[in-house]
Amino acid sequence: MPTLVLIRHGQSAWNLENRFTGWWDVDVTEKGAAEARAAGELLAAKGFDFDQVFTSVQMRAIKTANIVLEAMGRLWLPMTKDWRLNERHYGGLTGLNKAETAALHGEEQVLIWRRSFDVPPPPMEAGSAYDLSADRRYAGIEVPVAESLKDTIARVLPYFETAIAPELRRGQRVLVAAHGNSLRALVKHLSGISDADILHEEIPTGAPLVYELDADLQLVERYYPSSSDLARL
Amino acid sequence: MPTLVLIRHGQSAWNLENRFTGWWDVDVTEKGAAEARAAGELLAAKGFDFDQVFTSVQMRAIKTANIVLEAMGRLWLPMTKDWRLNERHYGGLTGLNKAETAALHGEEQVLIWRRSFDVPPPPMEAGSAYDLSADRRYAGIEVPVAESLKDTIARVLPYFETAIAPELRRGQRVLVAAHGNSLRALVKHLSGISDADILHEEIPTGAPLVYELDADLQLVERYYPSSSDLARL
Repeated sequence: MPTLVLIRHGQSAWNLENRFTGWWDVDVTEKGAAEARAAGELLAAKGFDFDQVFTSVQMRAIKTANIVLEAMGRLWLPMTKDWRLNERHYGGLTGLNKAETAALHGEEQVLIWRRSFDVPPPPMEAGSAYDLSADRRYAGIEVPVAESLKDTIARVLPYFETAIAPELRRGQRVLVAAHGNSLRALVKHLSGISDADILHEEIPTGAPLVYELDADLQLVERYYPSSSDLARL
Repeated sequence: MPTLVLIRHGQSAWNLENRFTGWWDVDVTEKGAAEARAAGELLAAKGFDFDQVFTSVQMRAIKTANIVLEAMGRLWLPMTKDWRLNERHYGGLTGLNKAETAALHGEEQVLIWRRSFDVPPPPMEAGSAYDLSADRRYAGIEVPVAESLKDTIARVLPYFETAIAPELRRGQRVLVAAHGNSLRALVKHLSGISDADILHEEIPTGAPLVYELDADLQLVERYYPSSSDLARL
């Protein structure tokens, strides 16, 4: 039976400061690393194992994947890194904390952004300190200036279909280490969640989310394994 | 111009204890991790950069690669892990320190093993605590019971020719993080060193060795970059 485990990166420095991060490459905190270690130990203790690992090209996700694998004694597994698993690009909001965003754009506008599926944040200005369009890792890729959740889904799902789903279909056990919104894209697809409801789906940092699928990759069961028991959702 | 940088993993726990390690999966020490970090910082400071990374399936090499990449801000680079870059398999010597080996096999025999290119150590016994033939990472591979340096070269070089050399030929800058003897195989090949002389070629842990090659992958220059200057060999 194909098994897919999703894990959002452990706490990052900007999760802690409540700043919009998006594509900016922020490291995990000590707590975030500990979350990843605990996740790997939990997965090993519960008898999970993997054949392949997919992650974004952002260090907080890659490090989370590496720490999970090391805790499982599986650092040797093949790992594919792809930008299409990156976090949603927060455009001009990148780097701002909640208070700064409200001061700059008003509480009402912030609410609109927060509650909308397809309204992107303001575009990142060229030359912004957070502009990554000239970063070598994105050579040959048109780096977005901002993404709505819909835009994020529009790059995550084709990647899932072309790169990950074929591996699952041939019985591979797959771990995906990624981000709040790139994982939302997968959860929306796999659990059949509406555009409106997916906005309320919060994926905690460093907590493995297990999808047991059938041969057609239809959902059989999903749950967060817990160290006490398997807490069914 | 194709550039290939070789790095032996940072000091491992068994390097420190002077024990034969081979395929046994021993972690790097704190000092070993620091060596890898310094190597990454040195490479970045000297203007080196990479497009692809190759490593063994052993954690001391993979962690060294990851630490080097993180220090260079390049954790996102594609990394290929392959058993053919593993350390030489030390067979029945695995786990023994120098004194134990001499006590068990005699000083004279140890000298023969040390000085021979094609004499393998005694085979690992099935059921040994260090027997990895049932390890999942080697599924589908006939795990050797022992390897001479010649045996090691016989698997490293075909891998170099089929997986790494084509990347170099198309201009990719390649980092290989591996082991004393798998790197000796590459050094012997690239520097044209004889069977007798390669035994005396010591590759230090955590020190990047740069090969500048021409379009036919013939040696132009090789050196260990140093933090003071480029110490030409």
